[in-house]
Amino acid sequence: MTSEDLREAHERIRGLIHRTPVMTSATLDRESGKGVFLKCENLQRGGAFKFRGACNAILQLTAEERARGVVTHSSGNHAQALALAARLNGIACRVVMPTSAPEVKRQATRGYGAEIIPCEPTLEARLATAARVIAKTGAVMIPPYDDDRIIAGAGTAALELLDEVGELDAILAPVGGGGLISGTALAAQTEARPPRVFGCEPAGADDAYRSFKSGVRVTQATPHTIADGLRTTLGARNFPIIRQYVADIVLVSEEEILGAMQFIWERTKLIIEPSSAVAVAPVLFRTLNLCGQRIGVILSGGNVDVSEYFALMRGKRV
Amino acid sequence: MTSEDLREAHERIRGLIHRTPVMTSATLDRESGKGVFLKCENLQRGGAFKFRGACNAILQLTAEERARGVVTHSSGNHAQALALAARLNGIACRVVMPTSAPEVKRQATRGYGAEIIPCEPTLEARLATAARVIAKTGAVMIPPYDDDRIIAGAGTAALELLDEVGELDAILAPVGGGGLISGTALAAQTEARPPRVFGCEPAGADDAYRSFKSGVRVTQATPHTIADGLRTTLGARNFPIIRQYVADIVLVSEEEILGAMQFIWERTKLIIEPSSAVAVAPVLFRTLNLCGQRIGVILSGGNVDVSEYFALMRGKRV
Repeated sequence: MTSEDLREAHERIRGLIHRTPVMTSATLDRESGKGVFLKCENLQRGGAFKFRGACNAILQLTAEERARGVVTHSSGNHAQALALAARLNGIACRVVMPTSAPEVKRQATRGYGAEIIPCEPTLEARLATAARVIAKTGAVMIPPYDDDRIIAGAGTAALELLDEVGELDAILAPVGGGGLISGTALAAQTEARPPRVFGCEPAGADDAYRSFKSGVRVTQATPHTIADGLRTTLGARNFPIIRQYVADIVLVSEEEILGAMQFIWERTKLIIEPSSAVAVAPVLFRTLNLCGQRIGVILSGGNVDVSEYFALMRGKRV
Repeated sequence: MTSEDLREAHERIRGLIHRTPVMTSATLDRESGKGVFLKCENLQRGGAFKFRGACNAILQLTAEERARGVVTHSSGNHAQALALAARLNGIACRVVMPTSAPEVKRQATRGYGAEIIPCEPTLEARLATAARVIAKTGAVMIPPYDDDRIIAGAGTAALELLDEVGELDAILAPVGGGGLISGTALAAQTEARPPRVFGCEPAGADDAYRSFKSGVRVTQATPHTIADGLRTTLGARNFPIIRQYVADIVLVSEEEILGAMQFIWERTKLIIEPSSAVAVAPVLFRTLNLCGQRIGVILSGGNVDVSEYFALMRGKRV
């Protein structure tokens, strides 16, 4: 894959995606000493950057594939993104979702018009159920991150960021399966002086960190993190791109994730999900030495279940 | 006052304020049938539209008045806005705040560099304490809404909205003391075909509604609403502007306020405070017949105490 694939992806999807705004925060600027630019993919359609990759994949289907529909297995943002991208293109979408997925996620995905196919909450059950759906319907599998079309789509967020704010010294993005960070690293290569790209990962789900440091892709054992979008295992296609183009992977504690999330909510009035906060924390808490630098941060998504907060508010009604 | 005052105010403050973005939501568009444009004053400096009026007042002080500093009595967004506007202009700011005010508000106002002067939680104590501060320091009182400079400043949000999206059929804004709604109504008059302006008020704090319907300004007795910014009594200068230029005042229930607030949080990923939700509710729940119209809504602010939510999240840590 080359950065040319990202340019083509951007041309392909630009009519469907939001060109999300870039925001700044005076406090974050003080922390960095120069300037922090927040690329607001939480304001993307479907509430996360995932819509970019989903559109890029769907728009490359043949007429015959479109007729058969698409399928994926996910309980997260990829499911909603694919459902929305499919609906906007008049394509049937099936999502294999474990019975353990929160009702709010099932509803959101169904709300975008997808058919939910329940399965047991194990990876084996997911794969087997998806295989059955494919055998029965001929649906085309669109994986969440281990896919060139998804990587290229994800990278278009950083393309837009660089286009809008100009030269950057560094870009930070969260690492889960590796779709966003590998796309971001490829986007950085479009610059004459490429920014250093840092992957940010919860310490409780550090498979990308361990893979990066050892040079051998390890799988996630038992992830323990509030950042639900980052519990996945690093993808096979994503790892070599990360090894080649990512400067480093930095680990973030659970307390830092919550602190950075609360900071963004309070100071910028933007709702971001815990996964996004993972890429804010190293700037806010200065765990990377980026003082005096111009830094981009990809706020990957804003899909948080706030119903408990509103239950609290309703309980307190005057 | 005329809309010319608003133009002058905008010229005066434009270098200090954020020109806040206008956002849209596909779901709200479906509700209105045409288009709803959200003017995001929750993204304004200090987290609310109040910064506009505070700047407009402070920038009109004489050199001698600047040297004496400013004072106000408030525990809400006006206090923070005035503190920030004063600090940016190198002016001392004192805020008389009842001892009952939440610690988070005291901290925020102090964080913007103001001196907090505590008083008993009664209107009499506030006024007496402010009078003492003025007698002792010569500080200039900047009231929160019953003031031409504050009204003109508040109206610049609607000026920007109309400038950005063009003709509108209606604009909705919350009513508390009446600074925002009277400024918005004056801004509407700059249009060749002025949009109808609707004031939106909690049913539990309906003094503006009762004043509007009876033609006589009544004072707030015992407000009962979660919309803490709207518990104030309608101002004397604000009422005649509202009578002349506002189409109607619509009442909103507490359940509608919370429903509209949750909708905006979940769908737009923007944090708005309950007062802002009051102006969203009539569109979302169709209590005004605005179908097929182009509607502007002023999202007045985003200062919410989310610490309890994060306490909840910390308690659930995996």
